[in-house]
Amino acid sequence: MDKIRRNERMSAMMKILSDSPNHLFTLSYFCELFSTAKSTMSEDIDLLREVVESFGLGEIRTITGAAGGVLYRAKTKPENAYDYIASLCEQLSGTDRILPGGFLYLSDILSHPVITRKMGEILATEYNDLHPDFVLTMETKGIPVALTTASALGVPLVIARHSSKVYEGSAVNINYVSGSSGSIQTMSLSRRAVQEGQNCLIVDDFLKGGGTAKGMEDLMREFNVGVVGKAFVMETASPVHKRISDEKSLMVLDISHLDDDTEAACVTPAPWLKK
Amino acid sequence: MDKIRRNERMSAMMKILSDSPNHLFTLSYFCELFSTAKSTMSEDIDLLREVVESFGLGEIRTITGAAGGVLYRAKTKPENAYDYIASLCEQLSGTDRILPGGFLYLSDILSHPVITRKMGEILATEYNDLHPDFVLTMETKGIPVALTTASALGVPLVIARHSSKVYEGSAVNINYVSGSSGSIQTMSLSRRAVQEGQNCLIVDDFLKGGGTAKGMEDLMREFNVGVVGKAFVMETASPVHKRISDEKSLMVLDISHLDDDTEAACVTPAPWLKK
Repeated sequence: MDKIRRNERMSAMMKILSDSPNHLFTLSYFCELFSTAKSTMSEDIDLLREVVESFGLGEIRTITGAAGGVLYRAKTKPENAYDYIASLCEQLSGTDRILPGGFLYLSDILSHPVITRKMGEILATEYNDLHPDFVLTMETKGIPVALTTASALGVPLVIARHSSKVYEGSAVNINYVSGSSGSIQTMSLSRRAVQEGQNCLIVDDFLKGGGTAKGMEDLMREFNVGVVGKAFVMETASPVHKRISDEKSLMVLDISHLDDDTEAACVTPAPWLKK
Repeated sequence: MDKIRRNERMSAMMKILSDSPNHLFTLSYFCELFSTAKSTMSEDIDLLREVVESFGLGEIRTITGAAGGVLYRAKTKPENAYDYIASLCEQLSGTDRILPGGFLYLSDILSHPVITRKMGEILATEYNDLHPDFVLTMETKGIPVALTTASALGVPLVIARHSSKVYEGSAVNINYVSGSSGSIQTMSLSRRAVQEGQNCLIVDDFLKGGGTAKGMEDLMREFNVGVVGKAFVMETASPVHKRISDEKSLMVLDISHLDDDTEAACVTPAPWLKK
């Protein structure tokens, strides 16, 4: 094989690293792949770190020592995160999205691969340092953004269901009170889906009363699993007091003015996102 | 700003292009981003095409002419696709995955970000040339792999539900016969989710009798949407005759021997995957 040039090594490494966020690759792995000396690889990695930083493409970290290597982390700069969410809010504030009953049509946004990937990267940036072992969501609408968040964190996704299924094996079921309707609902998770002592990040599409989110917290308690964070695509301005706290939502929906003539929802970036 | 070097341009371009499969970037976009002449950019792109090809990382295509540019396509080499699925089959053939009733525990595989990304890339490689406008799946378990397939194809994901929801707006509901149980079920899709004249790729996790898949075909007929393909993570060897045809599954599950002593499922790569 011809000698592999630096630009070739760096391009291939960029793709391989960023395809597996938080996965530690040994230097030897790349040395073998490119038939290159460790000193040369280290230089490549230093250069790649600068590229990734200067173009806002994430973060390259090197870990020294015997168990060391190199890894890619998803990282969205705060101003880019704000701008992206602000443009999304604008898109969602059109009158064409309000459905009968004051609901906001969100399904296309919530399952769009590019939009959910960006949202997942923003959430991963926020929760990376808390090292969740997996992402938990409740079926159905939050699954795409929960998957992209898990993907950007480099951890598995676990999906709770409304009822236990034969193909999930033995399951733990809990009942919870829906925050908005006050009705009793069931949430189910396979016993083998998670392990005692793990930590999870809860990700879902929508937070109103907080009943479902509270249910997910309770479910994790049954499994002796810690909850390091709760993230949502959107939360409603009202009710102000939810059944959970310390959540981070990307957008805030205010429909309190929808009774009068203005027939567009007011969607704004959440306060924790900084301009 | 300092002059941006070729290795920096190529690394950044690799990430930007591969983050948006099938999205056409103009040469001018990269010329501006890197403050570089078009001739230099063309050379960069030619080099990048070779790297991506030689390391099996996908495909870089250039489109010439006024509306031209450069794009990245997900592309898994046939032998790599086979090997990946074969190793997955091995993992699934353990006795520890058989649940009471002869069901196979698959939930962890079906929602794992890395595994579903690989599966999505293999399916996208297969259906790229048929240019679906979107991917359609039926909630719940197929959503992750449908999302990664849509992501690799660079198209939206559309999710059909078991019943219509207030936050989906007006919807089209159809009834269908579940292939395995013979019971009548409902499938619902928001009117605004798709447009007449589009083409879709159906992606789901599991194909047994084919009732749900047939239901999705019928649903698309109601919307005057064409179906260019039907892809599944796994299909059962029995029944041989499904309610649909021309499907492509990644794996075939045979549990016909599960009555006797051997308590492991037989999972094999589908015949269309070539060694």
